[in-house]
Amino acid sequence: MNQQIVSNTIQEINHYNRVLEGNKRYVQKKLSIDDQYFKKLSQGQSPKYLLIGCSDSRAPPNELTETDPGEIFIHRNIANLVIPTDLNLNCVIQYAVEHLNIHSIIVMGHTCCGGIKAAMKQDSVGGLLDLWLNQIKIVYEKHQDLIESLDNEDEKVNCLSSLNIRAQVMNIWKNPIIQKSWQKGNPVMVHGWLFRVETGYIEELLIDSQTPEEMSKVFALKFKLDSEKILQQQTTSQESPKNNARKRFQLMQKKITQHLKQLKENNLGNEQIVELEQLREQVDNQQKI
Amino acid sequence: MNQQIVSNTIQEINHYNRVLEGNKRYVQKKLSIDDQYFKKLSQGQSPKYLLIGCSDSRAPPNELTETDPGEIFIHRNIANLVIPTDLNLNCVIQYAVEHLNIHSIIVMGHTCCGGIKAAMKQDSVGGLLDLWLNQIKIVYEKHQDLIESLDNEDEKVNCLSSLNIRAQVMNIWKNPIIQKSWQKGNPVMVHGWLFRVETGYIEELLIDSQTPEEMSKVFALKFKLDSEKILQQQTTSQESPKNNARKRFQLMQKKITQHLKQLKENNLGNEQIVELEQLREQVDNQQKI
Amino acid sequence: MNQQIVSNTIQEINHYNRVLEGNKRYVQKKLSIDDQYFKKLSQGQSPKYLLIGCSDSRAPPNELTETDPGEIFIHRNIANLVIPTDLNLNCVIQYAVEHLNIHSIIVMGHTCCGGIKAAMKQDSVGGLLDLWLNQIKIVYEKHQDLIESLDNEDEKVNCLSSLNIRAQVMNIWKNPIIQKSWQKGNPVMVHGWLFRVETGYIEELLIDSQTPEEMSKVFALKFKLDSEKILQQQTTSQESPKNNARKRFQLMQKKITQHLKQLKENNLGNEQIVELEQLREQVDNQQKI
Amino acid sequence: MNQQIVSNTIQEINHYNRVLEGNKRYVQKKLSIDDQYFKKLSQGQSPKYLLIGCSDSRAPPNELTETDPGEIFIHRNIANLVIPTDLNLNCVIQYAVEHLNIHSIIVMGHTCCGGIKAAMKQDSVGGLLDLWLNQIKIVYEKHQDLIESLDNEDEKVNCLSSLNIRAQVMNIWKNPIIQKSWQKGNPVMVHGWLFRVETGYIEELLIDSQTPEEMSKVFALKFKLDSEKILQQQTTSQESPKNNARKRFQLMQKKITQHLKQLKENNLGNEQIVELEQLREQVDNQQKI
Repeated sequence: MNQQIVSNTIQEINHYNRVLEGNKRYVQKKLSIDDQYFKKLSQGQSPKYLLIGCSDSRAPPNELTETDPGEIFIHRNIANLVIPTDLNLNCVIQYAVEHLNIHSIIVMGHTCCGGIKAAMKQDSVGGLLDLWLNQIKIVYEKHQDLIESLDNEDEKVNCLSSLNIRAQVMNIWKNPIIQKSWQKGNPVMVHGWLFRVETGYIEELLIDSQTPEEMSKVFALKFKLDSEKILQQQTTSQESPKNNARKRFQLMQKKITQHLKQLKENNLGNEQIVELEQLREQVDNQQKI
Repeated sequence: MNQQIVSNTIQEINHYNRVLEGNKRYVQKKLSIDDQYFKKLSQGQSPKYLLIGCSDSRAPPNELTETDPGEIFIHRNIANLVIPTDLNLNCVIQYAVEHLNIHSIIVMGHTCCGGIKAAMKQDSVGGLLDLWLNQIKIVYEKHQDLIESLDNEDEKVNCLSSLNIRAQVMNIWKNPIIQKSWQKGNPVMVHGWLFRVETGYIEELLIDSQTPEEMSKVFALKFKLDSEKILQQQTTSQESPKNNARKRFQLMQKKITQHLKQLKENNLGNEQIVELEQLREQVDNQQKI
Repeated sequence: MNQQIVSNTIQEINHYNRVLEGNKRYVQKKLSIDDQYFKKLSQGQSPKYLLIGCSDSRAPPNELTETDPGEIFIHRNIANLVIPTDLNLNCVIQYAVEHLNIHSIIVMGHTCCGGIKAAMKQDSVGGLLDLWLNQIKIVYEKHQDLIESLDNEDEKVNCLSSLNIRAQVMNIWKNPIIQKSWQKGNPVMVHGWLFRVETGYIEELLIDSQTPEEMSKVFALKFKLDSEKILQQQTTSQESPKNNARKRFQLMQKKITQHLKQLKENNLGNEQIVELEQLREQVDNQQKI
Repeated sequence: MNQQIVSNTIQEINHYNRVLEGNKRYVQKKLSIDDQYFKKLSQGQSPKYLLIGCSDSRAPPNELTETDPGEIFIHRNIANLVIPTDLNLNCVIQYAVEHLNIHSIIVMGHTCCGGIKAAMKQDSVGGLLDLWLNQIKIVYEKHQDLIESLDNEDEKVNCLSSLNIRAQVMNIWKNPIIQKSWQKGNPVMVHGWLFRVETGYIEELLIDSQTPEEMSKVFALKFKLDSEKILQQQTTSQESPKNNARKRFQLMQKKITQHLKQLKENNLGNEQIVELEQLREQVDNQQKI
């Protein structure tokens, strides 16, 4: 048996070397189109999107969207979770928002997800993973009736995938880095995507909260911004600059929200809107019961 | 100013919709070659590699290696760090090793890395990131003399990138999940890659430890494996099955290591070997001083 | 102003030295009663309790319960939270359960808690704390109507303290280490305590789930125990040993639960039971709405 | 066997109720001395110290120093570790420094520590703990020659306990919250204590770095403070306010350091100084080799 392991391992090592061959082909191809391609790339990055996806090998974000190196800043973990106390992901968010000034954060989940499947079962999947998957189980418990009303196993898994994405998008809205960013005048958008492995298409999920103002007040944070402090010391106006800042902030949010709504109505066919509305209602009713 | 923010945001939202157009093109292209492509993909994943890379938008692993969806399981964080107590990454490792049975783990860093640059400076980069980058500063302090002996800023950054990759590879070898895997007869290989953004080429780094046996005994862990326990109860042989297991394990490691050495000598031209040996010596001398 | 800081600091340093004087008095006092006291203590620890409390300086567990060194294994953090992915606390739990074989875990919260108060407000309390307090905000949002129906601020804070303890007790029941422990035949009890700072008394909270069996099936985990595997290989009985193990496990749980119920009825005066039942009902109704 | 577990568990439940009796005695005792004791306590806390200790049941900080409730803010984990990316402890530090304005942080380790012993052995102690203890193994590897030159097992363990405390004190100095606090004019002191379980006495360790200025420049952080920004906008002086702030900061540090040195010389008998100096030299030489 041991001999078997050794020979398998050696075979793998040989195979692995062929992966690096792919890199050589890639460089040649790129250079043949633009011989300054990599020189330009090394000047710096200014991506507009942060994508939080699943580690699943079948869900590489750049391929799926035909985007180029330099366009998307990426974090991938088991089941695209946004756990509030996870320093790893929070550092990615801080870097993306405060240093790269990205404009949108996308949480991308997918169908046929092994992490989601594991969270729906009772079998332990190992000491660390059991702790991680607890986050999905919380979503599962909340919507258990809806999920279990579905007919087959795949539908159940995909429904939880979809609900999980929504829950993680909400965790992004609740994140202090995002909320601070809005209050400083950098309104980062947050989107939820479901990649349907079986068709290849990415579906944008209709998330109820599209600005931080729309989420529960319990999670809303107020930051004492430097600019406010400075203004407070310099102004003598009757209305405090703090209130001015808040008002301007709310006005700004309102305009963006209106635009988003209009956009959605234009983009989606009527049929699709009705379908999404129904799902949303189902989820809402579910939460009320 | 606020009007400006609103109009920029609306522009970004419009632009973002074009990203999803890329996905539609991608699906059409794939289906035109194989109309069962996504159906097959949805059957499951069996990647052979776990790649731990940087979130940097310029370093998408699949593009750079021309590998397909389904081939590489991926985690990406700020500066491709392997922090022993990071539950996020440890769950990725556990899933990849224990559930997907991957054969190799690759730590891929890159030149021109913003995280590495930030760790070399004294300016705070924000509450969470300062804590995260501490891990790089530990590597920097250890090799400060070597790094500062270099001539220009880019070389310094790239030297620390390279030393950082080596340090994270060592953190993988020290990881209990990896060590347990070897003892159970699944010898996971660990590699360090430096992606040179300015040329596009990936360089494999020569890492001294190529099996867990070669690292400091301090970090070596022994696991009480179920198979040993069962054997112990069933055997009456004079030599304990535990010792047999250890011996077989060591023999296996020895054979794999020998093969790896031979392979390296064959693959690399003599010139490159000499160059790498020199770098290795420099690093060794550095550590001794 | 700077001169002020320096002189304050020097004063503090002097004062600090007096704290170490307290240690000398303590040792003398202990030795005067039993001159072998510390020798015995150094032989090892075998505490029966793990207490997870708040870092608040006013809530030292040993004083409050007049227990001796050696009796309680202790972890204290901001607002006595049990966050599933927190490696720090999970290691404390693993050590306490698997190495010290403790019998009970106590989550002790308290009234007038600064962390609870902060979580009820919208003002940011700093980058890291905002992330940590999110866990309390989840409890707050769930029971917002109940809490806000209360008359004064102190009652609101203390109600959330109490609900927070219950939520953290449930997080302990969901923990894989605890669940595994039960399945291996070590039924760890879990308790919730509210320390009322203003009276000094500790109140035991009535928690609905008193065994892992009583919580939602979604969070129940099944472990493949070594003993089962060994038995499976050695047995030829018609009924599988796995089922036998499960049945024995359920029987054991049932007996313990019965005893707990009886105990509660005996210990509590009728009046108190009615009061607690009412609170429980309120909470239940709250969750249903 | 199961019957045994059930009866043991029931016995433990009965015993546990007696712990709560201790609380009743405690309250009576306190009230008999001052019937307003708990009323006063509930007004708020203003501790001057944050103590980071081990969860070990034999090391309760308040008992050992005869300090009262309200005096020390406390965090306890396995082997009193200060892991830079540990959100749990970092939140405790942030609350203590930024909200409670504590003056000193104490890292207290102890002899006969189970965590330290486990880190010195190769046997795995469980999935999560292996990851946690890695931090101690790093200290062990660095000082392996010194530790292994010692004669008996206890001395080795206690030497590593002591070196571990020093390493964690250094991690506190490197912490951004502490460094920021100094730069804002709140110079938090950091101390290392070794509690000798076998004698009961607490030993203050001589730590080389007694101010942030003394540690490696690699870990020194510079913060853009709000006050600086405001000053920069308002000032026209030739020397920038930023430089003024830095100079004042350095002057302040210098004075505190001088006082600390003098204090140490006065407090310690000559004999003890020589002994500590020798240990320090040993450690220094060790690091150079």
